[in-house]
Amino acid sequence: MNDWHLADGYRFAGIVGKLRTEPDRRDIAVIASDRPAAAAGVFTQNRVCAAPVQVSRGRVPRSDARAIVICSGNANACTGEQGLADARRMAELVAADLGCSPEQVLVASTGVIGRLLPMPILEAGIPKATAALKSDSEAFSDAAHAILTTDTRIKVSTRRTAAGIVTGFAKGAAMIGPNLATMLGFLVSDASVEPDALHAILRRCTADTFNCVSVEGHTSTNDTVFLLANGEGPPLAGEALGEFEQSVHAVCGELARAIAEDAEGANHLITIDVEGCRTDAEARTIAKAIAESALVKTAVFGADPNWGRVVSAAGYSGVEFEERQLSLRMGSFLLYERGTPLAFDAKAASAYLRDNRDVSLRVTLELGAGRCRFYTCDLTTEYVTLNADYTT
Amino acid sequence: MNDWHLADGYRFAGIVGKLRTEPDRRDIAVIASDRPAAAAGVFTQNRVCAAPVQVSRGRVPRSDARAIVICSGNANACTGEQGLADARRMAELVAADLGCSPEQVLVASTGVIGRLLPMPILEAGIPKATAALKSDSEAFSDAAHAILTTDTRIKVSTRRTAAGIVTGFAKGAAMIGPNLATMLGFLVSDASVEPDALHAILRRCTADTFNCVSVEGHTSTNDTVFLLANGEGPPLAGEALGEFEQSVHAVCGELARAIAEDAEGANHLITIDVEGCRTDAEARTIAKAIAESALVKTAVFGADPNWGRVVSAAGYSGVEFEERQLSLRMGSFLLYERGTPLAFDAKAASAYLRDNRDVSLRVTLELGAGRCRFYTCDLTTEYVTLNADYTT
Repeated sequence: MNDWHLADGYRFAGIVGKLRTEPDRRDIAVIASDRPAAAAGVFTQNRVCAAPVQVSRGRVPRSDARAIVICSGNANACTGEQGLADARRMAELVAADLGCSPEQVLVASTGVIGRLLPMPILEAGIPKATAALKSDSEAFSDAAHAILTTDTRIKVSTRRTAAGIVTGFAKGAAMIGPNLATMLGFLVSDASVEPDALHAILRRCTADTFNCVSVEGHTSTNDTVFLLANGEGPPLAGEALGEFEQSVHAVCGELARAIAEDAEGANHLITIDVEGCRTDAEARTIAKAIAESALVKTAVFGADPNWGRVVSAAGYSGVEFEERQLSLRMGSFLLYERGTPLAFDAKAASAYLRDNRDVSLRVTLELGAGRCRFYTCDLTTEYVTLNADYTT
Repeated sequence: MNDWHLADGYRFAGIVGKLRTEPDRRDIAVIASDRPAAAAGVFTQNRVCAAPVQVSRGRVPRSDARAIVICSGNANACTGEQGLADARRMAELVAADLGCSPEQVLVASTGVIGRLLPMPILEAGIPKATAALKSDSEAFSDAAHAILTTDTRIKVSTRRTAAGIVTGFAKGAAMIGPNLATMLGFLVSDASVEPDALHAILRRCTADTFNCVSVEGHTSTNDTVFLLANGEGPPLAGEALGEFEQSVHAVCGELARAIAEDAEGANHLITIDVEGCRTDAEARTIAKAIAESALVKTAVFGADPNWGRVVSAAGYSGVEFEERQLSLRMGSFLLYERGTPLAFDAKAASAYLRDNRDVSLRVTLELGAGRCRFYTCDLTTEYVTLNADYTT
């Protein structure tokens, strides 16, 4: 059974380890490759990064990864030397069961910051997870569930081309993300790719996908995306490698969008397109400023077509432009054109925001061909309520 | 009558012009100097800046300012050429009544973005305001009221030294600030100060006061602080000038704190002290990241001593440091010391946040003597509700 079109040569598990207080909540996941796999990883840019990030960062890129182990409910962040030892121990437990070196095992965590991992639970739970490893869709679904925190659903995406299958799952920058909206993504492929090429591909593919999602702009201590490729035979090159990269990009893009879509407390997915900039980087800077403006996000929540907030967020982004070079569309409504506000039907624009779960803001400048698509969500009273009392 | 210790040689007015929908709400203010005054101004860094900012920026520093005219309820931002003409017209109306050149009149506005000023109201209202100009406390209070938007009270501060009197009033970065949390500040002094010195003093004094307040990080299109000094006789120099600067700094500091304290929807004033950095600028960068974190602000709202959010915000601020160089205090609770989480009484820490309207976060690094004090407020459900439906 392979409903998800899973990449070949991987087994998955997601078990109830009791790291979390909810009964029957899966919280330990293992992904195992039957063969040594090329592995790449990208990590949070936060100076304060969790122990699993510090440990895993030293282990990729590599050519012989065998597994990834993930726990949810505890971030193992701000936990000092003991935290590093605990993250290494998680890998050792998997390695012992798979008969490989601990260095071949990557680690990720998500959950509350500043609490030591309850190691007895992991000492018992990880062997239970490795014993449950299977290559079917049910096991894959279990793993995808075990990494969730406040997400309401699993996020999964697959692409199959002649170059091989790329299968990915992720957890969200949920607005009430306990671990500061931690984003975790795991992609596995049965293509054969050299580790350095894999690393370059992962960096490029996350730059305009996972790195273009924001819930409240709070960069987590634990953000991690891993990509494994366990294909045998000669590594992909040329067109086939390009096809593989397209698959990775498509999977990253779908997962990133799913993360913004499932931001808890959110009523709207907001897609921000910025175009006509000098560079893609400048377009991203503007899009990010808009995506992270509490005033833009509350306006969308309230179905208030308060476009001045969008224009002014672009203005303070740090990118140089003149007001007369900027136009703004909200859905199909052209609200502001080359520095001049246009008359528009405010009731209809408000109805557009109220009646659609997916809404679009499009900022057009006249400086070049740089562009960016960025995802965010609205800021709701539910977000505040849910985040106001997380640890106590 | 001079209850406020007003600087000498100024008259004030604040009248009901009906720019606002609330009946009897004052919305046009004029400040007039009886003598030509040295004038300095600092303005928003937003690329999209309002017409009054564009007009006033070209008029300071100068040696012969005579008045400032302010309207609230409409920002005159994103209003194109017509907006510039309207801002100039506001100054002309004052100049006609005072018998000076329009260039000698400075302009500021706050309110909704993207709507043209209702000029008939201003054509009628501004002469009414200039006719009402008086040097007493009542007129001063009227002016201080007329610049408010969603503030719940006026913000006023005065210092008197041998160098002269400095009197200031401001409106807030109220959380539901209609004009994107516009901050306006007006300081008048009867000291004699050269325009260039005045400009340098204003820049220095706003850097660690008005520029260290954040409500939601959304830089307004209209932020403006003006400082007038109309003293006659030889300009201040040496110690006397230093004393004057101290007065200006104290007034700016009190007004800035009052703005964060009165942020609407807010339940807490949060004072963030960051110390032990390489430079004051780095300390400010860290403080600003903490102040603008929605997760930190909702935690304070919920009285949740979720300190990991503070540490991680410092981590993504962009300032380089090692986790083991960082300690964190919340009130008198030492929660995190040199990279290690400490055991603390979570109930008592939560009670501290719940029972105090003013709360303190103190981050200490071990890199140097750089420091910064930054003010912000909590993020509440009321903030979201109030901001969700502003223009419609």
